Amino acid sequence: MSVTTPKGFRAAGITAGLKASGKPDMALVVNDGPAKAAAAVFTSNRVAAAPVLWSRQVVSDTRVDAVILNSGGANACTGAEGFQNTHATAEKTAEVLGISAGDVVVCSTGLIGEQLPMDKILPGVEAAAAALAGDGGAAAASAIMTTDTVSKQAGFSGPGYSIGGMAKGAGMLAPGLATMLVVITTDAEVEPAALDSALREATRVTFDRTDSDGCMSTNDTVVLMSSAASGTAPGLAEFTAGLTQVCADLARQLITDAEGASHDIAITTVNAATESDAETVSRAVARSNLFKTAIFGNDPNWGRVLSAVGTTDAAFEPGQLNVSMNGVQVCRNGGVGEPRSLVDLSGREVEVVIDLNAGGETATIWTNDLTHDYVEENSAYSS
Amino acid sequence: MSVTTPKGFRAAGITAGLKASGKPDMALVVNDGPAKAAAAVFTSNRVAAAPVLWSRQVVSDTRVDAVILNSGGANACTGAEGFQNTHATAEKTAEVLGISAGDVVVCSTGLIGEQLPMDKILPGVEAAAAALAGDGGAAAASAIMTTDTVSKQAGFSGPGYSIGGMAKGAGMLAPGLATMLVVITTDAEVEPAALDSALREATRVTFDRTDSDGCMSTNDTVVLMSSAASGTAPGLAEFTAGLTQVCADLARQLITDAEGASHDIAITTVNAATESDAETVSRAVARSNLFKTAIFGNDPNWGRVLSAVGTTDAAFEPGQLNVSMNGVQVCRNGGVGEPRSLVDLSGREVEVVIDLNAGGETATIWTNDLTHDYVEENSAYSS
Repeated sequence: MSVTTPKGFRAAGITAGLKASGKPDMALVVNDGPAKAAAAVFTSNRVAAAPVLWSRQVVSDTRVDAVILNSGGANACTGAEGFQNTHATAEKTAEVLGISAGDVVVCSTGLIGEQLPMDKILPGVEAAAAALAGDGGAAAASAIMTTDTVSKQAGFSGPGYSIGGMAKGAGMLAPGLATMLVVITTDAEVEPAALDSALREATRVTFDRTDSDGCMSTNDTVVLMSSAASGTAPGLAEFTAGLTQVCADLARQLITDAEGASHDIAITTVNAATESDAETVSRAVARSNLFKTAIFGNDPNWGRVLSAVGTTDAAFEPGQLNVSMNGVQVCRNGGVGEPRSLVDLSGREVEVVIDLNAGGETATIWTNDLTHDYVEENSAYSS
Repeated sequence: MSVTTPKGFRAAGITAGLKASGKPDMALVVNDGPAKAAAAVFTSNRVAAAPVLWSRQVVSDTRVDAVILNSGGANACTGAEGFQNTHATAEKTAEVLGISAGDVVVCSTGLIGEQLPMDKILPGVEAAAAALAGDGGAAAASAIMTTDTVSKQAGFSGPGYSIGGMAKGAGMLAPGLATMLVVITTDAEVEPAALDSALREATRVTFDRTDSDGCMSTNDTVVLMSSAASGTAPGLAEFTAGLTQVCADLARQLITDAEGASHDIAITTVNAATESDAETVSRAVARSNLFKTAIFGNDPNWGRVLSAVGTTDAAFEPGQLNVSMNGVQVCRNGGVGEPRSLVDLSGREVEVVIDLNAGGETATIWTNDLTHDYVEENSAYSS
């Protein structure tokens, strides 16, 4: 499924020449209605890119007609000229589609601190508009890739309506609210306030709990558009559940394709006093470079888990902590449990469960190991 | 200079057989007085090792007669048995020295989550006591090494007195208060309250601002002992300045020998509204894996600096941020400054200066780059 699976949407992915590789680098997703309802969440990084500053304004009236996206340049830390370039991109998109620039969300991704080549962007907008198609979702998903090795799409089929989504992101991947570019479409009839509520709830437990490398991007955007073209109006709880499923699927694809990773790690904290405590503890472990390198080395080094847990202010007693790795309780009551040698870390999936024995709340953070390939990708190439 | 440079101290470093390599693994530092004043700071990690729990109690009465240290095992997350082993080590040390166990600080470093081999530790205490010598400082400094490639010693000569110190630490190196084992001696006459005040001020701006890999240890200990054997009583400000110099020297040696590092990086935030803001911003950059891998790749990627600064709550306007790398202002007013190509990162020393334009306060965090060797050391070997 893709962003063009729901009725009322067209999309395109084309090559504007922004990337030295010659790969596709601009995408366009258009909502043909009848409704143009939208909601979005953006990075909480205070150094926000020009397209984020622009798009926050666009979404504030809950109407979005189109999203224009480019890879090959983040347009972040580019000052007034960068903002003018985002504005010009929205104006050009509006002109070729016959809509208002104030209804065009702009997303950019790539190297921070360089101006976009507008002599390629503006013809790219024209080419993208000319390529718009009712089955253009896959092409759009490919055109937003940067260091991604595969394009990411997901979908949900509800009774009489559907939800489709695409995402990019492989590095600088930690939640600020989300940490990547994501476009989600639906033909369900959902009011803007309900779209916003559903999107915030879905991202809170999916993209927000994805933390590959602890680095928050300047460009994170998740935009959700409803065309209402199906004529079906699901209940909010049902719609939120379907949307959460799409977000979780995309978030999982991001982790699986994260730069250089060799293990996908789910860190679940259980029996926490609060959900916030559970998330804090899981995230502290997810951000420990020593834990992440141990997993790369297939080493069930639970001491590195406890040393990370100990840096948090969550409610727990050190002598009551239990840690399981892939089903083996290697740490019991803060001390030595089952033998480390029983833990098999040879597969890609790793599950760490930390029992705080302090309540009944749970949260999972999804992360990766820290590998030679991560260091190689992020030292050898600018992004 | 070493811990035996100040008058009134003896030390030893011996091989008890804790390390598979057969290298020295136990050290002893004894204060022969006449005074036995002491102060210490410990890890703030809530999962504190047994020797930390023990030594906090020992230091609480401001008297320390001896410090017994072992590498080859952290005795952390080892429960009641681990605490009993620390206690037994202190008792044995007291017995062979003819002092009270309640005046013996115990320090351990090595793998978390395994019991110490007491059948080797207790004979090791006897051997260390037998080897005590007035010039044993260097041997002690060697015996506390783990993944350190060189031993670390430093000293300060004041008018009529001296300060000597030794340190170990190469990984799990981020401040909790300090993140390693450090023993500092002085023959200056300094009252316990002044020792404590001087030590907290010195560590606050040295070890506390050393952040190699963001991972806080369970065993960090910095202990300072005064024998008063010189008969000289310096003023508190003068003594604190000398002590800070020793701590800064040792902290710098820790960074230079950090696991796998190829660059030593000083990140200074200037013109901050508060010192706390300056420290927060410098530390956020020091903990960005993307920034650290960029430096490994000799890439002056200032966008990764700004994306880290943007995650903090320090007072600043994004459009007023300036960043210099090795003297080149690559980011001006939040946007593009001088060409990146002017920055030379080929040397080991890297200086990043972040100007917040929000006040007059400054703080520096010392860190390293993130390299293939860091990943290799921490994935291939348990610690």
